[in-house]
Amino acid sequence: MSENYASLKLRYLGIDTYKDPIIYMREDCHICKSEGFEAQARVRVTLNDRSIVATLNTIETDLLKHNEASLSCYAWELLSAKEGAEISITHPKPLESLNYIRSKIYGHELKAEETKSIIEDIVAGQLSDINIAMFIAASAGNNLTQKEVFDLTTAMVNTGQRLTWPSNFIVDKHCVGGLPGNRTTPILVAIVAAFGLIIPKTSSRAITSPSGTADTMEVFAPVNLDIPRLKKVVEQENGCIVWGGSVALSPADDLLIRIEKTADLDSEGQMVASILSKKIAAGSNHLVIDMPIGTTAKVRSIARAEFLKKFLCSIAKQFNIIAKIIFTDGAQPVGRGIGPALEARDILAVLTCDKNAPQDLRERALILAGEVIEFSPNVSPGQGKIMATHLLDSGKAFEKFQAICLAQGGMREIPIAPYVHSVDSIKSGQIINIDNRHIARVAKLAGAPNSKSAGVDLLTPLGTIVEKNQPLFEIHSQTKSELNYALDFLKQGHDIFQIEENS
Amino acid sequence: MSENYASLKLRYLGIDTYKDPIIYMREDCHICKSEGFEAQARVRVTLNDRSIVATLNTIETDLLKHNEASLSCYAWELLSAKEGAEISITHPKPLESLNYIRSKIYGHELKAEETKSIIEDIVAGQLSDINIAMFIAASAGNNLTQKEVFDLTTAMVNTGQRLTWPSNFIVDKHCVGGLPGNRTTPILVAIVAAFGLIIPKTSSRAITSPSGTADTMEVFAPVNLDIPRLKKVVEQENGCIVWGGSVALSPADDLLIRIEKTADLDSEGQMVASILSKKIAAGSNHLVIDMPIGTTAKVRSIARAEFLKKFLCSIAKQFNIIAKIIFTDGAQPVGRGIGPALEARDILAVLTCDKNAPQDLRERALILAGEVIEFSPNVSPGQGKIMATHLLDSGKAFEKFQAICLAQGGMREIPIAPYVHSVDSIKSGQIINIDNRHIARVAKLAGAPNSKSAGVDLLTPLGTIVEKNQPLFEIHSQTKSELNYALDFLKQGHDIFQIEENS
Repeated sequence: MSENYASLKLRYLGIDTYKDPIIYMREDCHICKSEGFEAQARVRVTLNDRSIVATLNTIETDLLKHNEASLSCYAWELLSAKEGAEISITHPKPLESLNYIRSKIYGHELKAEETKSIIEDIVAGQLSDINIAMFIAASAGNNLTQKEVFDLTTAMVNTGQRLTWPSNFIVDKHCVGGLPGNRTTPILVAIVAAFGLIIPKTSSRAITSPSGTADTMEVFAPVNLDIPRLKKVVEQENGCIVWGGSVALSPADDLLIRIEKTADLDSEGQMVASILSKKIAAGSNHLVIDMPIGTTAKVRSIARAEFLKKFLCSIAKQFNIIAKIIFTDGAQPVGRGIGPALEARDILAVLTCDKNAPQDLRERALILAGEVIEFSPNVSPGQGKIMATHLLDSGKAFEKFQAICLAQGGMREIPIAPYVHSVDSIKSGQIINIDNRHIARVAKLAGAPNSKSAGVDLLTPLGTIVEKNQPLFEIHSQTKSELNYALDFLKQGHDIFQIEENS
Repeated sequence: MSENYASLKLRYLGIDTYKDPIIYMREDCHICKSEGFEAQARVRVTLNDRSIVATLNTIETDLLKHNEASLSCYAWELLSAKEGAEISITHPKPLESLNYIRSKIYGHELKAEETKSIIEDIVAGQLSDINIAMFIAASAGNNLTQKEVFDLTTAMVNTGQRLTWPSNFIVDKHCVGGLPGNRTTPILVAIVAAFGLIIPKTSSRAITSPSGTADTMEVFAPVNLDIPRLKKVVEQENGCIVWGGSVALSPADDLLIRIEKTADLDSEGQMVASILSKKIAAGSNHLVIDMPIGTTAKVRSIARAEFLKKFLCSIAKQFNIIAKIIFTDGAQPVGRGIGPALEARDILAVLTCDKNAPQDLRERALILAGEVIEFSPNVSPGQGKIMATHLLDSGKAFEKFQAICLAQGGMREIPIAPYVHSVDSIKSGQIINIDNRHIARVAKLAGAPNSKSAGVDLLTPLGTIVEKNQPLFEIHSQTKSELNYALDFLKQGHDIFQIEENS
């Protein structure tokens, strides 16, 4: 449908709605009037050869002139918009994918091409958050069949970039999340690459946590590598640790996760597709998955872990990926530091075999690295961890880590926070509980992950016997006001440690 | 949690997001920084003694000053906000209702208090559109048990206003929608009230159609009556026809419908709760439901109609409502006019027994009015329609209609559009199909329902044999430019009539 009278000039207002494409138009502009568009209508917005479907918010004031429109930041980016550019606005064609979402809601199994259509429209910004939410709700619980999960994974892989490698023996590692400080990845990649296996690791940044693996790695070296640079690092050093966002593997995954998070929804099927699509897109075919089990971790019971293990392995097999799922303890944070620089410090301590290095972090990294190494046909079962330990203790892993940092753009010093405040115990007794959510909140108030040096340094792990006035943890921050935000939160009575007095 | 540093001054930007409460804050304001708020975060906004949960959109430009925030129109209204007022912003407490939505997604039956909590939070603006969409998806298809529909109806009634009446014999009428021009309500109310039954009718305005019953009735008389005035009209004249929005019966229903519409989702359970909650809130206990069946109507098959009939009657009975479901023909528009004034003209023609009145509209109104009249213990089965016909033909119904209009604020003249354009047939033959969606689009482009006189006047119903150059329909509009919008649409090849040439 060509409607040549339906054009407006773009003006940048800089409204960030995250990944929800919104168009702002005066409610009394000629297009709203002629097309009968009202707030929350879905409209097709075209600029040059690009076109998206956006949700309309109407403006009742003079924020926009009569011939002007604006776009939310994400919509602006999707259309590569420029100030003053002419956009045209029309009614969107009915989306086929909406029929398929409806079909899923009504309990039907989706065909491969139906799932493909939904995922393509999500990535192209054609479906509204409301419609994506409905798809997620219809798929949640245990409502996707194995075939649907296979198709979903395929569609997610095919709508993003893919890495290809000359070798057909590519290893990878993933962690099913939920445990603060669990930064085994940089240590593991260093060990495995030093051993000689190829491990092109992409990691995420924090969404709601004080740090993601990519944020922590960025303390050591640049992580925003494009695909050609990533490939060069891996060719040269066998491994890398880069931010997945810069290489756009499985972009559908990020779009689904952001909606799932708003309702804290766990969908087994979508979790499997999420994990595997990123790994398939990265070109991996041997995968170790760290699955921490604990009451505050993502996986809360052995039964659920066993179910997920079976599900993951079965779908992985269909993509010719050998997956090993390792159950680990998810009861408390790993290491001592929470926040990019403090976590980096723990990693460096383990890599340099510092005698004060957190032993739990070292031990986890060695177990997982050992499992990856055992994918190698030359390594007999049980030998992997021994070889990993040797690579770490001999300094070869640290050498490799330095080389990877150099290849990624140069190794950096770990920054130290100018403000450090120690919080002491008000009584003596034993630490019987640590509140992971409160730790995360304090670390974020102190400035993590945007201030690299900010965060929380835990001094007394679970089970420690403490004296009155003994320091329990430190708050690190870049500015005095951020330190005060964190302290204000604690003053309001949010305890991190539960201490049982000796009787 | 008291966070006294978390306040900002309100500035009105006039951004209309329909019913989605949004707060706009600078991404670099002290609250976003200290609380770690990012775009799409859910935040609690408090002004004086009112408090809502809103979705955060962050501003990257100088649209707002450092100490300023803004609200979408709906959020502004919910908080009774004023320019310059101080709002405080905090993290929202986790919503219990979100757990219940999750539980429904996972396939569990909700308890009465769980449904109550969800509906209360929807009405109070605590749940985001995304979360409401998930609830709708989880309830759609046939996923609500009878008990859940009963609880949902109860919760929807209890979160809005209720009308009470001295009599315990209150009749009402509802149409399951989807048929343009099906405006039997004003005729039926006039007949039934003239007969002597009490019928306090509330109707809706158009959401996506060229006119709602309230829009059409507004051509004759004011419809924005508050509860005391509505009661006075009914006391005096036995009946009324007012806009439901002005009396806030079952406000949850409007909030759910707006999300359902985005995905064109039909949920039997929610439809039953939607219809009955409004009627229970209106204090009705005898209900006739017009259920048009046809391929472009809401109910498309007899099987579905039978299922809905059983469902509606069974839930209605639990609320002591006697419901009669009348299946009617849903194949084509009713009457001739589409748009407020043109529909009003058809209604007036029927009420005044004009010999050119559309007989299909007259016949439907008489059948339905007859069914309502037969609720009366004095009327034997089969007598209702005869009595209705007598009341119409004797002029008593028209007298009553005039009295109701007067009681509602005075009877008005029907406006006539200054621009009328006739569209002629380009060939001779028989009308074999009428595209209801295209008619609606043309009527809206011409200005309906905002311009009362705008719309489409159909001249040749289904089956008519037409000559070449014979007028098929007229476009009515208030302005030349609106007429042109409608004509442009037709020029693009959107036909309304399908004509089969004589062979």
